Amino acid sequence: MSELQTPYYLIDKARLRGNMEKVARLRERSGAKALLALKCFATWSVFDFMRDFMDGTTSSSLFELRLGHEEFGKETHAYSVAWADHEIDEAVGYADKIIFNSLGQLDRFGDRAKGITTGLRLNPRFSTSGFDLADPARPFSRLGEWDTARLEAAMGRISGVMIHYNCENGDFELFDHQLARIETEFGDILHKLDWVSLGGGIHFTGEGYPLDRLADRLAAFSRKFGVQVYLEPGEASITESTTLEVSVLDLINNGKDVAIVDSSIEAHMLDLLIYRETAKLPQHGEHEYQIAGKTCLAGDIFGDARFAQPLKIGDRISIADAAGYTMVKKNWFNGVAMPAIAIREEDGSIRSVRSFGYDDYKGSLS
Amino acid sequence: MSELQTPYYLIDKARLRGNMEKVARLRERSGAKALLALKCFATWSVFDFMRDFMDGTTSSSLFELRLGHEEFGKETHAYSVAWADHEIDEAVGYADKIIFNSLGQLDRFGDRAKGITTGLRLNPRFSTSGFDLADPARPFSRLGEWDTARLEAAMGRISGVMIHYNCENGDFELFDHQLARIETEFGDILHKLDWVSLGGGIHFTGEGYPLDRLADRLAAFSRKFGVQVYLEPGEASITESTTLEVSVLDLINNGKDVAIVDSSIEAHMLDLLIYRETAKLPQHGEHEYQIAGKTCLAGDIFGDARFAQPLKIGDRISIADAAGYTMVKKNWFNGVAMPAIAIREEDGSIRSVRSFGYDDYKGSLS
Repeated sequence: MSELQTPYYLIDKARLRGNMEKVARLRERSGAKALLALKCFATWSVFDFMRDFMDGTTSSSLFELRLGHEEFGKETHAYSVAWADHEIDEAVGYADKIIFNSLGQLDRFGDRAKGITTGLRLNPRFSTSGFDLADPARPFSRLGEWDTARLEAAMGRISGVMIHYNCENGDFELFDHQLARIETEFGDILHKLDWVSLGGGIHFTGEGYPLDRLADRLAAFSRKFGVQVYLEPGEASITESTTLEVSVLDLINNGKDVAIVDSSIEAHMLDLLIYRETAKLPQHGEHEYQIAGKTCLAGDIFGDARFAQPLKIGDRISIADAAGYTMVKKNWFNGVAMPAIAIREEDGSIRSVRSFGYDDYKGSLS
Repeated sequence: MSELQTPYYLIDKARLRGNMEKVARLRERSGAKALLALKCFATWSVFDFMRDFMDGTTSSSLFELRLGHEEFGKETHAYSVAWADHEIDEAVGYADKIIFNSLGQLDRFGDRAKGITTGLRLNPRFSTSGFDLADPARPFSRLGEWDTARLEAAMGRISGVMIHYNCENGDFELFDHQLARIETEFGDILHKLDWVSLGGGIHFTGEGYPLDRLADRLAAFSRKFGVQVYLEPGEASITESTTLEVSVLDLINNGKDVAIVDSSIEAHMLDLLIYRETAKLPQHGEHEYQIAGKTCLAGDIFGDARFAQPLKIGDRISIADAAGYTMVKKNWFNGVAMPAIAIREEDGSIRSVRSFGYDDYKGSLS
């Protein structure tokens, strides 16, 4: 078998289908619409496949918006923490809905968005994030409006709100509880709206998640306020669908067995570094190794792994769950060869859809 | 005046010259050679300018090596934490010297590097790094060999070593003290060598650094062991030479005045996020703002700044010291428009040497 040269991200369509079928079931039972959050995953070669299961895309910038409009189609939501003057007309041209982050942005650009549905980001001042860094409800958060007077000032100009406050939340009870808080604290406003996006971060495609209870809860919310509900699954759409395939380049022991592989957390799985987390690595067998990247960064470490046999140079290792927030922020740190992007079709065949070479590296600079 | 559209990195050649002249003085007085560390800065449009002041480049991967060879020229050092089988012959073709990270890599590839000078990375087991993440001497470090028996096993096959153990070290006394430790602990080995690279991380271009004392110390080290000394300045070469130019997109107050700009620490100045540091921002005036990026990340915050006048939307802000470890690891997080790269010539004129658009974003994926 001729194998692709590592490193490469490998998107497994059969695994992706598993998530997509859960998304489709949730939509059908709840009446909610599901938009892919491109900030998490924007590998457009699989949009043809995902399109049948989802309602469209949502975005966090002009480029994501345009990609969603051109390559995914269907319903396209435009959100950005802040639009620039030179972006707004183009953005409105691609979008079905535009969601402003602040009353100031609505004041500034509302007129130029007259042709499309307009919304505002509502910050409920609580979230499920365990990381201050990623917590949209942190003190002085710039993400959305929470002051009732300011929200009221937008009424008449908006028909909906986006509320993003979940982060990898796999706890339905917590979701239920926090949604009840939103109903209580912002009910007066919600009653005046046509649609409410509850954002992303609900881990409803995870093993054992009570999908039908979530669906029924969303349907009840929708009925109570007479609103179309949207969800913006990013990680939930693609979780566990993709691996990062790497090869062992060197084996050393400086007090511990370390396998150096042809990749890097900083360059290829950046969130492991930012959030000081470890990768999902093989854990079966008695031979233990620390799996490390090949950059100059001392802490370029994927984590500890176990194998049935001792590793040899050239052995391949699959790093699991490598779709979300990886390809969208890969970079050329240390000039490390950038992983190709490959797709495993449902018949088992693998095709590379993008590879990167020296010219891409050189062209990233000038 | 027609200004470039923000965001853009602006490399100021007059400021760069200040650093380069210090590098040249150090070389002249000490006899040490200075190689630009491409992992820190690889914007090759200014290599023509830097070439007159430096001896060449060093690298941390095949792509950096090739870039140094093709665009900088002069002496080219090849280092990588681990070379792959399919890289080694090409690497040897570009390099004057190849420095292996481990005895295992020397064993594996030494024969294929026969035509060029060969070295090994020596890890002295101490460093000046204040961050465990970036500390090459951390426990179980995979960066270099420290065991005397293993170093001895390489003798006869190598003519030099690379010792990288400084990190933004602006303290000459500490440098002097640690070099003395190296002389004591590894003197027997150093006497057998022709060259020693002391790596990068010495902040000798900083304001007030005792450059001549450093030069004399390096010259004494060189005489004592009869070795050619190399330095690999990255940050020291380009420090304070470059700004990131951004514009204010929105002004909000959720308990604090916040200016949202058309950039992002995660996408454009990643080390601020990784090391939880703040950017160098204007600090004069009575009007204080938090300067925040435009991504979805709650912690996308450059830091606090002060201005003489209240900020207005459209105002431009210069973020200082934006050359090192920025352009080499910028990425498409959130699809935020990527900063162009521009150069301010010594006559004051500014020219853009690279800009990035939607097609670059789309082509970063597939």
